[in-house]
Amino acid sequence: MGEPAASSSEVAPKHGVIACASYANGRRVSDIPLVDCSEKLAETSDFIWIGLYEPPEDILRLIQKEFNLHDLAVEDALSAHQRPKLEQYEGSLFVVLRTAHVEADGHLEFGETHVFVGDRFVVSVRHGSIKSHSPLRAKCEAQPEQLKKGPGFVLYALMDFIVDQYMPIVDELEERLEKLEEEVFGDERSKMTTSRIYSLKRDLVGLKRAVSPVADICNRLMRFDSGIVHEDTRPYFRDVYDHALRVNEHIDTLRELLGAALEANLSLISVSQNDDTKRLAAWAAIVAVPTLIAGVYGMNFEAMPELHWAYGYYVILVLMFFACGSLFIGFKRSGWL
Amino acid sequence: MGEPAASSSEVAPKHGVIACASYANGRRVSDIPLVDCSEKLAETSDFIWIGLYEPPEDILRLIQKEFNLHDLAVEDALSAHQRPKLEQYEGSLFVVLRTAHVEADGHLEFGETHVFVGDRFVVSVRHGSIKSHSPLRAKCEAQPEQLKKGPGFVLYALMDFIVDQYMPIVDELEERLEKLEEEVFGDERSKMTTSRIYSLKRDLVGLKRAVSPVADICNRLMRFDSGIVHEDTRPYFRDVYDHALRVNEHIDTLRELLGAALEANLSLISVSQNDDTKRLAAWAAIVAVPTLIAGVYGMNFEAMPELHWAYGYYVILVLMFFACGSLFIGFKRSGWL
Amino acid sequence: MGEPAASSSEVAPKHGVIACASYANGRRVSDIPLVDCSEKLAETSDFIWIGLYEPPEDILRLIQKEFNLHDLAVEDALSAHQRPKLEQYEGSLFVVLRTAHVEADGHLEFGETHVFVGDRFVVSVRHGSIKSHSPLRAKCEAQPEQLKKGPGFVLYALMDFIVDQYMPIVDELEERLEKLEEEVFGDERSKMTTSRIYSLKRDLVGLKRAVSPVADICNRLMRFDSGIVHEDTRPYFRDVYDHALRVNEHIDTLRELLGAALEANLSLISVSQNDDTKRLAAWAAIVAVPTLIAGVYGMNFEAMPELHWAYGYYVILVLMFFACGSLFIGFKRSGWL
Amino acid sequence: MGEPAASSSEVAPKHGVIACASYANGRRVSDIPLVDCSEKLAETSDFIWIGLYEPPEDILRLIQKEFNLHDLAVEDALSAHQRPKLEQYEGSLFVVLRTAHVEADGHLEFGETHVFVGDRFVVSVRHGSIKSHSPLRAKCEAQPEQLKKGPGFVLYALMDFIVDQYMPIVDELEERLEKLEEEVFGDERSKMTTSRIYSLKRDLVGLKRAVSPVADICNRLMRFDSGIVHEDTRPYFRDVYDHALRVNEHIDTLRELLGAALEANLSLISVSQNDDTKRLAAWAAIVAVPTLIAGVYGMNFEAMPELHWAYGYYVILVLMFFACGSLFIGFKRSGWL
Amino acid sequence: MGEPAASSSEVAPKHGVIACASYANGRRVSDIPLVDCSEKLAETSDFIWIGLYEPPEDILRLIQKEFNLHDLAVEDALSAHQRPKLEQYEGSLFVVLRTAHVEADGHLEFGETHVFVGDRFVVSVRHGSIKSHSPLRAKCEAQPEQLKKGPGFVLYALMDFIVDQYMPIVDELEERLEKLEEEVFGDERSKMTTSRIYSLKRDLVGLKRAVSPVADICNRLMRFDSGIVHEDTRPYFRDVYDHALRVNEHIDTLRELLGAALEANLSLISVSQNDDTKRLAAWAAIVAVPTLIAGVYGMNFEAMPELHWAYGYYVILVLMFFACGSLFIGFKRSGWL
Repeated sequence: MGEPAASSSEVAPKHGVIACASYANGRRVSDIPLVDCSEKLAETSDFIWIGLYEPPEDILRLIQKEFNLHDLAVEDALSAHQRPKLEQYEGSLFVVLRTAHVEADGHLEFGETHVFVGDRFVVSVRHGSIKSHSPLRAKCEAQPEQLKKGPGFVLYALMDFIVDQYMPIVDELEERLEKLEEEVFGDERSKMTTSRIYSLKRDLVGLKRAVSPVADICNRLMRFDSGIVHEDTRPYFRDVYDHALRVNEHIDTLRELLGAALEANLSLISVSQNDDTKRLAAWAAIVAVPTLIAGVYGMNFEAMPELHWAYGYYVILVLMFFACGSLFIGFKRSGWL
Repeated sequence: MGEPAASSSEVAPKHGVIACASYANGRRVSDIPLVDCSEKLAETSDFIWIGLYEPPEDILRLIQKEFNLHDLAVEDALSAHQRPKLEQYEGSLFVVLRTAHVEADGHLEFGETHVFVGDRFVVSVRHGSIKSHSPLRAKCEAQPEQLKKGPGFVLYALMDFIVDQYMPIVDELEERLEKLEEEVFGDERSKMTTSRIYSLKRDLVGLKRAVSPVADICNRLMRFDSGIVHEDTRPYFRDVYDHALRVNEHIDTLRELLGAALEANLSLISVSQNDDTKRLAAWAAIVAVPTLIAGVYGMNFEAMPELHWAYGYYVILVLMFFACGSLFIGFKRSGWL
Repeated sequence: MGEPAASSSEVAPKHGVIACASYANGRRVSDIPLVDCSEKLAETSDFIWIGLYEPPEDILRLIQKEFNLHDLAVEDALSAHQRPKLEQYEGSLFVVLRTAHVEADGHLEFGETHVFVGDRFVVSVRHGSIKSHSPLRAKCEAQPEQLKKGPGFVLYALMDFIVDQYMPIVDELEERLEKLEEEVFGDERSKMTTSRIYSLKRDLVGLKRAVSPVADICNRLMRFDSGIVHEDTRPYFRDVYDHALRVNEHIDTLRELLGAALEANLSLISVSQNDDTKRLAAWAAIVAVPTLIAGVYGMNFEAMPELHWAYGYYVILVLMFFACGSLFIGFKRSGWL
Repeated sequence: MGEPAASSSEVAPKHGVIACASYANGRRVSDIPLVDCSEKLAETSDFIWIGLYEPPEDILRLIQKEFNLHDLAVEDALSAHQRPKLEQYEGSLFVVLRTAHVEADGHLEFGETHVFVGDRFVVSVRHGSIKSHSPLRAKCEAQPEQLKKGPGFVLYALMDFIVDQYMPIVDELEERLEKLEEEVFGDERSKMTTSRIYSLKRDLVGLKRAVSPVADICNRLMRFDSGIVHEDTRPYFRDVYDHALRVNEHIDTLRELLGAALEANLSLISVSQNDDTKRLAAWAAIVAVPTLIAGVYGMNFEAMPELHWAYGYYVILVLMFFACGSLFIGFKRSGWL
Repeated sequence: MGEPAASSSEVAPKHGVIACASYANGRRVSDIPLVDCSEKLAETSDFIWIGLYEPPEDILRLIQKEFNLHDLAVEDALSAHQRPKLEQYEGSLFVVLRTAHVEADGHLEFGETHVFVGDRFVVSVRHGSIKSHSPLRAKCEAQPEQLKKGPGFVLYALMDFIVDQYMPIVDELEERLEKLEEEVFGDERSKMTTSRIYSLKRDLVGLKRAVSPVADICNRLMRFDSGIVHEDTRPYFRDVYDHALRVNEHIDTLRELLGAALEANLSLISVSQNDDTKRLAAWAAIVAVPTLIAGVYGMNFEAMPELHWAYGYYVILVLMFFACGSLFIGFKRSGWL
């Protein structure tokens, strides 16, 4: 996680700064220390791209000064736990996105990526979002034609990068749903099934909350008339918009099916309860009948001819056996056993 | 599936190209190789209609070059798994539709048809959508008056073709619902009923997802001011719009009824559980009473006059029989048996 | 059903044409054969009102030619199974409405009425909608002042006629709901109750589907700027709009109450199941206790003084009786029996 | 109910006319007979306020003529059973409101108040709405400054009067919900609980239907540009709007809580069913064990030493007692009893 | 609760007035008596900030006179029980917010804060909202740069203060949900669980009702063109808006999860009922089998060889024991016990 310090040798190796470089004409010019940013912007026409990971407050304050960011945006970036949103300040945009990853135990964890975008700078701040942006930076640098379009393109690349991470997660959730379907409709239904349904629901609700504002953010970026987002870049945001919608729809489908699975689960619990009641009744009957017969021949009447038959006992035993046997067969046939 | 190669003899029989022909004045002029398309467009005023089936990337890239398509649209056409949508690029439209067909085991499978429409070309790309477009092409060619209206009319014909395929599918789903109703309200309710309800739900959700965006796509096509869709063609898109709405509404009705059927199923499971409990109780009572009587006469008191009666045993047997009989009749009357 | 052929003696008694007359200044001028319609329109300033009942295709095609109707509208009128809608074509409106009637077995059946309205003609086509329009025609002819307003007024009269038919149907559905409430909350709850709830739900969903688009159709007619609907007629469409809304709201209320009734039904099934379980338990106890006592005195110990008492048997019988009796009273008091 | 006839001595004491008076400068000038209204309006600049209670058709027709009301509005006023609405006719508004009151048996009954408002007249028509408007008239007459604003202010006063009646009703419904909560969560849950939940639901649905259109009506009155509603009066309609919203929200909250209470009820029924099953099982075990022991010592083996012990019988009785006792204590501890 | 009287020594210590001070250039100038407010406004360009706590009517009426407030707003402020809203009167805004706090027993209680904001005055009125505003006033006074922006900034500070109080409450509700999840999915499920779910639901509905209008209020304040809210202050309202949305979303998530938890609870109750039924059946079988065996050897047949075996009794006892033991093991294995 994080670019090797070597590649940003000029930057003071302060905690939290992963990379800070200036770009001209779509190519990386040089890595620069944070404190030189405003100077660089004034002297050249380069744009600057900074990557931070859970930075301490002083670094963010320094960046605020260098790029003249709005106080409220910086405070949001400090506190994390924001909802995905796009806010327009004079001269800059502030975008908050939520990232998601699957923990070892199969549950979802969420992180956040905040992005400040100006005419000539991009600052990304990751909070608890474990996937490094360095492959993304490498990929962008490999497309100088595109990178030339400036910070707007970097914003697109970042959003695309994050939205693309949702896809495999949704696929994983779909697999969990399919396993649950097997449990519910197979014979493996247990107490844990309900608990697993609930935990899938929880993850879907969380993911939905992360994804659903993204389409709206893209939509607004597509229509922006500010100079920050280059006109050529807009169809790209439509592409991200489209992906976000797709993920969103997929989540909605899963939620709806999960709801149906929960209901099916409840019905099938009732059905199996019913089956158990029937089985209980059948066995009760099978035991009760010979008990009754035994009771009859346990009566103390003086005049009970069967008692005096030589084979009375065996006849009765056979009778009991037949009674039980025919009950058993009858219940089997009617599906009670 | 697919037009016979004979009818496209001039086209190199590359994998994936089903047909590629130019049309003038509503009539097919000639089949042409893919590589000559741009030339053809430049030299004549014909329009070109290409049909592809799961084409390899190089063919799509060739077409992209010939017709100057946007990168993002071509990437979508390559990857499939798109949601139904309409995207407007400079000089062309990109339409994604989802097709559906019923598998042998009664479940729905979905495919996709992507369409690039320009001023003077239409390219359709099928992915997993099993129904060939050749009858459609034949039908269009039989209406030169209409085909004269250009690519917009072909787009209409394609959309109409796909939306018309939904109708019999919805009818089939309705039949499945009716069978389920019989199961639920008849006496055939079983564990499988719940599972069948769930699987119908799954198919309805999938179909809904395929159909519901179509109305919106048509709506936007009806209002388009671009030259691609001829003004005369717009009422036709309203017709498709109307069909899509009808299918949509039908699906909604089925979903609502299915939901009600699920709830009815749950109630009836409870009712039948109740009935089983009552039956169990009734039989328990019928066996318990003679058992009690037998127990009484199994007591070892010295002074029990009945024991010494000559016909005591028989009297008691008759008593037992009557007790059971009257209980049986009583339970029958009150509906417990 | 249908006007007597006598009143349309001039019309060739072709299958499907119920009436075809021209009107001037709000009064019926004469009945005319279908083929003379276009001529009539050209020569006079009368307007023509035609009533059809499930006409064969050739008649509709003739009418299409006479009035220059759009192909798509005529195809809709041929196929039936349309959703209620209003479509505007150049020079004419096409309105589809759904009619409803209660079958002998209490279920709803739906029909359709299609109306073509032009500047100077109205053509109504009934499909499976059993109520004849002749009383409506008579009523309109009795109000020449209104009929003078032309086809727009006839359209209003037709819509009013159809919407007014919904009211008694909704009332009937409300009665069915009330009977269901009695069943559910009275002691008549049975397996059939659930099935009746479902069938009422089905009818409500169908009726809703028929009624809900009507308000929107009226709304659009109220705002129309075409010459077809006279400005004076617009408040009348607001009246139909209002009635449609009222029916709609009534249906929504019934649906909501039906949903609550279904839930109440499910709770009460559980409650009564619970009651049955308790009753079963109570009777089991009442029988089990004397059985236990009998078992005790059936033991073969040598030294059991009670067995040798002169009235031991009677004492024990009385004891059993008292045990059962006090259990019975106890259970009665606690509401288990 | 109703003003004493004395106060309207000049009015012919026709059935249905409660009051008919003219007002100038915010003060009551004189009571006038209905037939003189149009004359009065022509001669003076007074405005007229008429109160009717379930008037026969001829009176309404007379008023229609006097004030030149639209036919459709008058027909609505005749038939009652309208939904709350605001309709704008040339020169007058027609407002329908629903009133509610609690019957002796605690259920809600609904009435209607229709209001015709013109530049210089207000006519209110009550149908089944039991609360007289005379205190309202008195209150208005006590505020000549306000009454001076004309019919618009009277309309406000009427609406405020009616909306204020909803508040105590909603409070009563809330109390019923609280009692239901006690029933459900206390130990008083019974068959009646479900039926009471349903009946509260019914009342809430009915009240919602009465209240929810009122906010929209006020909203439209606030924005009206007609001379009927004085500009100074508009904030007053916002006040009514606000009250209507509050009642509306309160109803929604109650509905949501009632839904949750219904679900809680269902769970608790299941829980208590479970408890009863456990109790049944526990008692069955407590009786079954000594029955088994008695059965063992009822066997007729020759060699059963216990049978010959002097105190065998007593030992076994004590054993039985201990078995039962320890089972009882065990079940008590585990919460089954 | 409440500022010490000392700090407002100049104010007559009337009941309900917590503070009344004038501010110039962002700094507190002096505390002034209520009656001097209008004079102060006329003479200086200071703005006045008044804090009231459940004031008696005469104080509010005095303030109304001093600041020329609208009658309807003052009446709302008197009666409390308002819904959160923003109302614009000529020259002033009236804002109602709901506050929330957790009672000792864990339930939510709600209070209200009403704010009158004018060009040069702010009056806040607390009803049952227990948290004093004095730390807020202190904080504002510590930021003279901001306070200079006038009453609009004070309004922001108040709203921020109130919305910030929601956060810990939502966190507490989330904790309650988590405890409930443990109860439901752990083995601690009881009758109280359902009741606790219901009470959490109640609190969530109440809180939602308090919070959800706040976003809309902020949204309108952000777009206001009146002089009351300084243009620089608008991004601050966007910040409050954002917080309100976040709280809102959090509540929605909790509600959805709570709904799922309720359903899971219902399923698990059924599952555990099922388990109890099985256990009951298993024990019934374990007792019934030896009872049957004892019954058989209690029969009085003359010819039953086992009865005469020397160790017959012991053999049978062992047989009984083995039967019970193998049943026990079998049930254990199949999970019934």
